[in-house]
Amino acid sequence: MSSSASASSAGDEANDPSSRVVTLEPESGLSMECGARPARIQVAYQTYGSLNADRSNAVLICHALTGDQHVANPHPITRKTGWWEVMVGPGRPIDTNRFFVICSNVLGGCMGTTGPASFNAATGRPFGLEMPVVTIKDMVKVQALLVDHLGIERLFCVAGGSMGGMQVLQWAALFPKRVFSALPIATAARHSSQNIAFHEVGRQAVMADPNWRGGKYYEAGVRPEKGLAVARMAAHITYMSDDSLHRKFGRKLQGRESPTFSFDADFQIESYLRHQGSTFVERFDANSYLYVTRAMDYFDLAADYGGVLANAFRQSKSRFCVVSFTSDWLFPTTESRAIVHALNASGASVSFVEIDTNKGHDAFLLDLPELLATTHGFIEAAASACGIPGAP
Amino acid sequence: MSSSASASSAGDEANDPSSRVVTLEPESGLSMECGARPARIQVAYQTYGSLNADRSNAVLICHALTGDQHVANPHPITRKTGWWEVMVGPGRPIDTNRFFVICSNVLGGCMGTTGPASFNAATGRPFGLEMPVVTIKDMVKVQALLVDHLGIERLFCVAGGSMGGMQVLQWAALFPKRVFSALPIATAARHSSQNIAFHEVGRQAVMADPNWRGGKYYEAGVRPEKGLAVARMAAHITYMSDDSLHRKFGRKLQGRESPTFSFDADFQIESYLRHQGSTFVERFDANSYLYVTRAMDYFDLAADYGGVLANAFRQSKSRFCVVSFTSDWLFPTTESRAIVHALNASGASVSFVEIDTNKGHDAFLLDLPELLATTHGFIEAAASACGIPGAP
Repeated sequence: MSSSASASSAGDEANDPSSRVVTLEPESGLSMECGARPARIQVAYQTYGSLNADRSNAVLICHALTGDQHVANPHPITRKTGWWEVMVGPGRPIDTNRFFVICSNVLGGCMGTTGPASFNAATGRPFGLEMPVVTIKDMVKVQALLVDHLGIERLFCVAGGSMGGMQVLQWAALFPKRVFSALPIATAARHSSQNIAFHEVGRQAVMADPNWRGGKYYEAGVRPEKGLAVARMAAHITYMSDDSLHRKFGRKLQGRESPTFSFDADFQIESYLRHQGSTFVERFDANSYLYVTRAMDYFDLAADYGGVLANAFRQSKSRFCVVSFTSDWLFPTTESRAIVHALNASGASVSFVEIDTNKGHDAFLLDLPELLATTHGFIEAAASACGIPGAP
Repeated sequence: MSSSASASSAGDEANDPSSRVVTLEPESGLSMECGARPARIQVAYQTYGSLNADRSNAVLICHALTGDQHVANPHPITRKTGWWEVMVGPGRPIDTNRFFVICSNVLGGCMGTTGPASFNAATGRPFGLEMPVVTIKDMVKVQALLVDHLGIERLFCVAGGSMGGMQVLQWAALFPKRVFSALPIATAARHSSQNIAFHEVGRQAVMADPNWRGGKYYEAGVRPEKGLAVARMAAHITYMSDDSLHRKFGRKLQGRESPTFSFDADFQIESYLRHQGSTFVERFDANSYLYVTRAMDYFDLAADYGGVLANAFRQSKSRFCVVSFTSDWLFPTTESRAIVHALNASGASVSFVEIDTNKGHDAFLLDLPELLATTHGFIEAAASACGIPGAP
């Protein structure tokens, strides 16, 4: 793990990330779903803990839409703690004293793995929309190349929430022998119509910003910050629940006794959302937002297997633990149940936990005792079955 | 009812509406909640049917956020049929052969009632943000002035869905003796935190559009169409249900066999949403969108009555029928139930119907047999109690 002394910006991290970097050059290029075959992919990644002698203790964490590789270290731009420190670290459910944890920025991202903000040596400028459209399968193929590079044949566990969970499912389907255990949280085997709709709103908000300039804003020294902030605000609502918004904000006014009868942020929820929008644009690239949302839209795991999701898992020997949250309306429990039914139909080993919480989709990121206990129990049992020694 | 021969535009309708118009000049002005006291308000309205001799058969329809007075006649801009023709017309549940139906454009609207796009005689230009911020109570006060102007003391019924339902509740609270029966559909007695959040996203999308120009776009001959389209797209998702989107669109592609791996509208839902956005901007003014969403945000009926909703209805002698829809997540049944509990606590006469449908919030606008039958039954019973003769 590396970190720079001074805070950097989204653009800096895309090309000069505060992470380990490897340039992968697979034979005959990376075969992407869209048909492109780039010869060279840069991957930025973080690792925590040590790989054991028989290389059996590696855990791959897959990050969500706006996540990154900084799972358990301060973020190089925001300086905030890692996004999954409740889950990953010494003594945490994914214990870095025992496991070698890997997390890489996804293909299409903006934190150092090749994405639209990356410098394209062929043209001498950032890719922008010349970057081929990325899918979840493409992301997973790149992760597999990284895992190869690290000399790891089989991952002890692949874990992630939301889009991270999509990658977990894709890993189990694409590399059934390389995944000992799989932990998909708050996710789905295909993106729903409503979720595509919310993504499309976000993309249209970005593209409506005149600073977007058809994706060529890097050269112009501007960024479609207003459009991206609107996209983030809309998305952020979907990460919470009606109930949690009601409890957290209700109709409370922001620093005033009575309404101003204006378009100021009278209500706390407005002020909160505006803050979410304005801080997000500091750390995220607008074109990456287009690419990564699009990857989620295209995700439909069953489609590759004759439309039968169970067929995706026929070769799998993985142990699965599927987790959903009662108040998650973006990836509701029905989606997790469909995954569990398919796993059962394929004869896989699967446990399923629906956690009762009012925190909505973002619950997977929070310090939720039931989630941590579920993960701990699943990891312990899998480690025992895999012959990995207990906590020191 | 009047209509022009050629289609007009949003700007035309604001100042020269295809409707009857009255200029109201209440003594000492209109006392608005924000403290403003305009001397003069223009109201554009439609009527259907005839007022009977004892003036007892008037029904006031209150329209929703982006609705207007064109309940049961072709829209002057879009040429589409009126927005509630399934409910209002000859032989319909609100039968224009028996009832005198009135609907006026709300204060702050853009179809001929004073709003931000209206010409301000004091400055010689459109109001823009110089229009005082409007509340639901202000809208209702203006409607009451119109009803006065029409020589009607008591309305047989006040009916409306969504923001229209808010106005129905406000009517019953503010003018308890003037409302014989009240039909609030798919509504709430206060706007929720999540709903304020979605409105704020829409407003930020409008304001992020450089063509918005602080609301002074009229003079510049431009309109923040891209921002308003994004606002509409986000809002439109909330009017439907996950299930109805899944059934209607699912992951179906738009006019193609396989994905293009691009940012085109590959999916039908994307194409549909973009269409919703682009057609909306033809008929609606962006500043009105700010004002009318803001009015909904500020709505909290109990706040005027010591925080106790039941107190809002203590003076009411109205018969209420409250209707909600199972798949409406914008105004869920819990909100209607809160209204019903308050009405029960206040000793009001109330019936409550939760209709099982997957159509989401927009169900109130649709040809839903159970909704039409509920309304028909309620109206018939109320007409009988009120002494209005049955259908001819």
